[in-house]
Amino acid sequence: MIQRGCKSPLRCIVKLGGAAITCKNELESINMETLKSVCAQLREAMAGSTNSSPGSVPSMDWSTQMGYAAVSLAEEFKDGRALDLVSNFIVVHGAGSFGHFQASTSGVHKGGLHLPLVKAGFVATRISVTSLNLEIVRALAREGIPSVGMPPFSCGWSTNGRNVASADVSHVIKAVDSGFVPILHGDAVLDELLDCTILSGDVIIRHLSHELMPNYVVFLTDVLGVYDRPPTDPDAILLRKIDITAVDEDGTWSIMKPCLQLKKLGVKITVAAHDTTGGMETKIAEAAMIAKLGINVYITKAGTPHSLRALRGEVGDDAPDDWLGTARHHLF
Amino acid sequence: MIQRGCKSPLRCIVKLGGAAITCKNELESINMETLKSVCAQLREAMAGSTNSSPGSVPSMDWSTQMGYAAVSLAEEFKDGRALDLVSNFIVVHGAGSFGHFQASTSGVHKGGLHLPLVKAGFVATRISVTSLNLEIVRALAREGIPSVGMPPFSCGWSTNGRNVASADVSHVIKAVDSGFVPILHGDAVLDELLDCTILSGDVIIRHLSHELMPNYVVFLTDVLGVYDRPPTDPDAILLRKIDITAVDEDGTWSIMKPCLQLKKLGVKITVAAHDTTGGMETKIAEAAMIAKLGINVYITKAGTPHSLRALRGEVGDDAPDDWLGTARHHLF
Repeated sequence: MIQRGCKSPLRCIVKLGGAAITCKNELESINMETLKSVCAQLREAMAGSTNSSPGSVPSMDWSTQMGYAAVSLAEEFKDGRALDLVSNFIVVHGAGSFGHFQASTSGVHKGGLHLPLVKAGFVATRISVTSLNLEIVRALAREGIPSVGMPPFSCGWSTNGRNVASADVSHVIKAVDSGFVPILHGDAVLDELLDCTILSGDVIIRHLSHELMPNYVVFLTDVLGVYDRPPTDPDAILLRKIDITAVDEDGTWSIMKPCLQLKKLGVKITVAAHDTTGGMETKIAEAAMIAKLGINVYITKAGTPHSLRALRGEVGDDAPDDWLGTARHHLF
Repeated sequence: MIQRGCKSPLRCIVKLGGAAITCKNELESINMETLKSVCAQLREAMAGSTNSSPGSVPSMDWSTQMGYAAVSLAEEFKDGRALDLVSNFIVVHGAGSFGHFQASTSGVHKGGLHLPLVKAGFVATRISVTSLNLEIVRALAREGIPSVGMPPFSCGWSTNGRNVASADVSHVIKAVDSGFVPILHGDAVLDELLDCTILSGDVIIRHLSHELMPNYVVFLTDVLGVYDRPPTDPDAILLRKIDITAVDEDGTWSIMKPCLQLKKLGVKITVAAHDTTGGMETKIAEAAMIAKLGINVYITKAGTPHSLRALRGEVGDDAPDDWLGTARHHLF
């Protein structure tokens, strides 16, 4: 039943970190500046060498407040500019300041749908995260990216003890094969053990990576990459390149860049132990699992020249010195 | 793989007609008054005999503009009122003034995804109809109905020459079995023959009825039911009860009420021939197909005492004289 892989190889899975695209300290508020910049960079990455100027892109969001008229639309899309994208990308976004309040208030991640508060929290969480999904789909469409929202709960994703139990990826593949960019997100889902839980965007990316083997995966965050301690610490060192040597799911690894810090940090560190940013712990573990599949993983700051290079696939196996971010490879 | 039917019998599939819940002459505008009334009636129907007063219902939409505080939520949901609903309902809504402009401008119903305008129209149509879906999910959640959006494209519904080709209804069943009310809608989907097309809410209802055999199906529209000519005509007669005698898919039938008009109208009429309301033709044909399955179908005006009786399942096999609407049965 399940078709394995896309017709043409999937180029990239992009994670839009919740912290990057929403305002952390303001409930249900989108960081429009970063989101707009991310969408423009994604279009640039999909356009490849035919680098069309962002101003000339016809929008695919024709909502009334945009004031579109039928006649100008037919004219705008006549010359085929909308089809010059190699759009075999998948975007997965986090929730940031959407959904978090609803999920944590109700404890929906711990299950218990028989409890009224949990059931209501499930509904409220989905309303919040799907409204964010809609806004991200619209922002991408305004950049001419043929984006389609695919909320995991609606797509039938379910978990068993928070691990993916069922996910018919064939819908996602069909969408990619038809030239669309599926936009998934962290969502409240049914769980075989717990009744219900939260499926995080990072777990979704690991599953999609395993099933679809993209050329590379980019995590866009609100910091330059992975640090050896909280990035707010003035002594924090950006870990430039990490070699995944972990053989178990705990994810231990060694640092290849910067070499000078290697001894100070110890050959193997659990970066997650220093984490205070909330989502970084899962992100690192999931990124390690993806790298173990032989897929290059880049973690970098959204809306910077570094994120554009990562999205275009220009960082490669050996991250250049002027690229700031964390690259993660599996050495065979 | 596909589980057939819900754990407990599905009580009702409700169609919220696009003309009833949106403002026909204003692009992307919701008829909030009717929508609110429909949601309150749905809650009443789900509450059964324990008719809770609408004012006391705790909302499941906790978006920030609603101003909810965690402490009051925990208190509100403590007493279990949110679980007193027998919620084995499915809601399918039309698009009305959402999506129509986008679909008709681009011709997305005729397929041709290789054309930039069609591809953009597919994206734009989905943005418009999913934004309506989100608002309907929120309106239902505000009435304490545990609603979850399930856009057909995301759920993997696809068509072949506009007929449903693939629809894994198991996701919908799982949602119902977990106590949620799935909210589907007319959507742009992939089509095996045409590349893409529009899957109408009425076709979705026929498919779900066939798979899940609900006790009854209610179509909520902006007129009292099916008339013998356009309802704007002062001589228009409401056809109160229709007996489905059609054996083919063309849908011919005889009218049982009002008996006096039988001769004037002819024993068999094609009501659709008099239709100028846009969606009524498909609605009647689809309703006829559902009635042929042995399921009672009621077509009535949204937000009236008649719609409440229909939603509660009180109209029965023999529509009472003081109930205004069109009942449709298959006589075995």
